[in-house]
Amino acid sequence: MESNYSVLKIFVSNTDKIGLELLYENIVQEAHKNGISGVTAYRGITGYGLSSNKIVTSKFWEITDKLPVVIEMVDKTEVLNAFYAEIEEKLKSTGKGCLVYQQPIEIKLHQSGKK
Amino acid sequence: MESNYSVLKIFVSNTDKIGLELLYENIVQEAHKNGISGVTAYRGITGYGLSSNKIVTSKFWEITDKLPVVIEMVDKTEVLNAFYAEIEEKLKSTGKGCLVYQQPIEIKLHQSGKK
Amino acid sequence: MESNYSVLKIFVSNTDKIGLELLYENIVQEAHKNGISGVTAYRGITGYGLSSNKIVTSKFWEITDKLPVVIEMVDKTEVLNAFYAEIEEKLKSTGKGCLVYQQPIEIKLHQSGKK
Repeated sequence: MESNYSVLKIFVSNTDKIGLELLYENIVQEAHKNGISGVTAYRGITGYGLSSNKIVTSKFWEITDKLPVVIEMVDKTEVLNAFYAEIEEKLKSTGKGCLVYQQPIEIKLHQSGKK
Repeated sequence: MESNYSVLKIFVSNTDKIGLELLYENIVQEAHKNGISGVTAYRGITGYGLSSNKIVTSKFWEITDKLPVVIEMVDKTEVLNAFYAEIEEKLKSTGKGCLVYQQPIEIKLHQSGKK
Repeated sequence: MESNYSVLKIFVSNTDKIGLELLYENIVQEAHKNGISGVTAYRGITGYGLSSNKIVTSKFWEITDKLPVVIEMVDKTEVLNAFYAEIEEKLKSTGKGCLVYQQPIEIKLHQSGKK
């Protein structure tokens, strides 16, 4: 059992870009380069408050819709704090709406895959 | 850094209705009308315990399946408490299974999109 | 209002197997057999750190991709602890990467569906 771990959640939109890259893919790559332990991104089916104050909705075939994407990162709290400090200016510079929050967690298992 | 923020998570099914409307879409619209700061809904790929005590599962093409939907709302704790008090009777009146929980969070960034 | 409830989150991959069965489906079925109150599984669109240290990504049509799956279980903390103790050896025996964490929650509503 380990302590002092947290989850950091970053809410953006699936259409937000930074340069030519998708913002959420850029953030996942940055996390990977910085050695953040585990990262998962999910696409929502509806929501608002991110880049858009209108409700966006996904019907199955409308795959080009603007939809919420949340990126969830797990690591030691101080590692996440340092990573967030590094990307904060980038998130602010996009001019896009963005919500970021953090919560403490209790790790029960953290196992690497064997080759 | 702000404090006293929470996340409120509401678990329903993607087929639950209130009148002619989908329950989860109705809840997202109510949250929007009540000025809740940020809302994202996700569809699960399998689960149980919501409206159904049987395990429901999504294979890719079975898009009419009954599946779990979770609605995640972020705002000040007292704002979420007031909003939940307003929709509690509606959730109870559906006769559908429903799980609602709340957790405190630490907001790192809450940025509105520029027009 | 009830207390002493938690959420247990298990991160695996959608392709991890235990015998001939998908690992995440096996875990959901075990949870169901053990009477865990509510379970929802989600598929991510990208991520790393689970079974794979490379970033995996979903484009819409590439449905056979290896992707992150997170299983979220809600019940009393001691019930989740007992269930986790029961499946821990199985998760370790797969040789696959796996992250498990737990957080306390405050239940606002826990309503069974009427037949």
